[in-house]
Amino acid sequence: MQALILSIGTEILLGNITDTNSQYLANHLKDLGIDVYKMITVGDNKKRLKNVLEEADGKYDYVFMTGGLGPTEDDITKEVAVEVCGLDNELELDKSSLEMLEDYFNKKNKAISINKKQAIFPKSATILKNPKGTAPGCILKSKNNTKFILLPGPPHEMTHMFDNEVKKYLESSYIIKSVTAKTAFLREWDMASRVDLTGDNPTISPYATDNGCILRITAKAKDEKEADEILKKGIKRLKNH
Amino acid sequence: MQALILSIGTEILLGNITDTNSQYLANHLKDLGIDVYKMITVGDNKKRLKNVLEEADGKYDYVFMTGGLGPTEDDITKEVAVEVCGLDNELELDKSSLEMLEDYFNKKNKAISINKKQAIFPKSATILKNPKGTAPGCILKSKNNTKFILLPGPPHEMTHMFDNEVKKYLESSYIIKSVTAKTAFLREWDMASRVDLTGDNPTISPYATDNGCILRITAKAKDEKEADEILKKGIKRLKNH
Repeated sequence: MQALILSIGTEILLGNITDTNSQYLANHLKDLGIDVYKMITVGDNKKRLKNVLEEADGKYDYVFMTGGLGPTEDDITKEVAVEVCGLDNELELDKSSLEMLEDYFNKKNKAISINKKQAIFPKSATILKNPKGTAPGCILKSKNNTKFILLPGPPHEMTHMFDNEVKKYLESSYIIKSVTAKTAFLREWDMASRVDLTGDNPTISPYATDNGCILRITAKAKDEKEADEILKKGIKRLKNH
Repeated sequence: MQALILSIGTEILLGNITDTNSQYLANHLKDLGIDVYKMITVGDNKKRLKNVLEEADGKYDYVFMTGGLGPTEDDITKEVAVEVCGLDNELELDKSSLEMLEDYFNKKNKAISINKKQAIFPKSATILKNPKGTAPGCILKSKNNTKFILLPGPPHEMTHMFDNEVKKYLESSYIIKSVTAKTAFLREWDMASRVDLTGDNPTISPYATDNGCILRITAKAKDEKEADEILKKGIKRLKNH
């Protein structure tokens, strides 16, 4: 299963906020055995978002999208994704989402106003509840069998929806498990000359951080037990050096 | 001036680290009046990196790349960028970079070994010194007039190089200045119904965070003074609501 993680928001391109959603998704998708091939960030711009979605359609099994599900004019994620999937002709007001929204606004003694659009979905969409905010998410399936998974931008809404609503719909044929080790060697060059970095499963890769060099050992396996055995082999290989 | 920010590293796609480099660059490029159109992250994979660079070539004025400049086999950034720019036939050992590397290793009583490749650059490259590590950066110009700016991955090396080496080479025809304001309204829907979000310069956009809703007012101008006047107009418009 191959995935793209896509964040949508001009505030990220301006450097106003750090995109922590992508790392959260990457980290959890890895554990679920879904390979993240790329991450992309675009602004609140219809044309550019559409280009990215059209390119991704048919190329990835999953496209995880965060942001742009709000009620304002510049929140364009659902509209564009619906268009790319060719689902514009089956839009309808989802009663259960509308009820949740009405409930939310009643409690605040407010009229629902512009938020009504957040309850409109294509008939074939899988709707993902958002008890933490007003924007429900959804899964849209394109004619090219790509699943577009639309999640809200605020991290506490996104992570709650991913953990409680999204995970159960994801498929995977294997798991990926990795362990990282901080090494006594301080720099990448030093490690590379001392450690055998060849081999496919597990892979062993060094990477440099501001706090020194890290070795990442990664196994691909059908289950946890097999993964642990493969990781053990990798660690043994390291110790022999 | 239009820019792409590209981070390279499997460790980011696996969620092992947060990519703080992209936010740093975005934030500083905005102040320099360079528009960031997109951010992309790819792993240490030659084919996929090459695809991204080929697509970016001629489309952007600047492509800021972080990561993959280390000495090991999986550090492929420079090799791929040189290939895409068609500069493979003018590679040479840069004496001054080699001296800095030799100096670095002499101080540690180490042989330079695999790091020698870090001192090899195309003749036409602008080389960017790295007093904080072993990987010099560089600026490569393609035949389609895109400048590829290669920077190291470790944040303290990257930020130092950007501030001290890269900035002086960047051109821009205007500046972008933005201010953000936390609002008394708690949610995006509330703000959107009370605030006039139309207008081009300044633009006024709300975005939701875990700590409530933020309004961003952004001006595009020829200098700081003009930008401040435009921002003042935007703030006045908000106050009238």
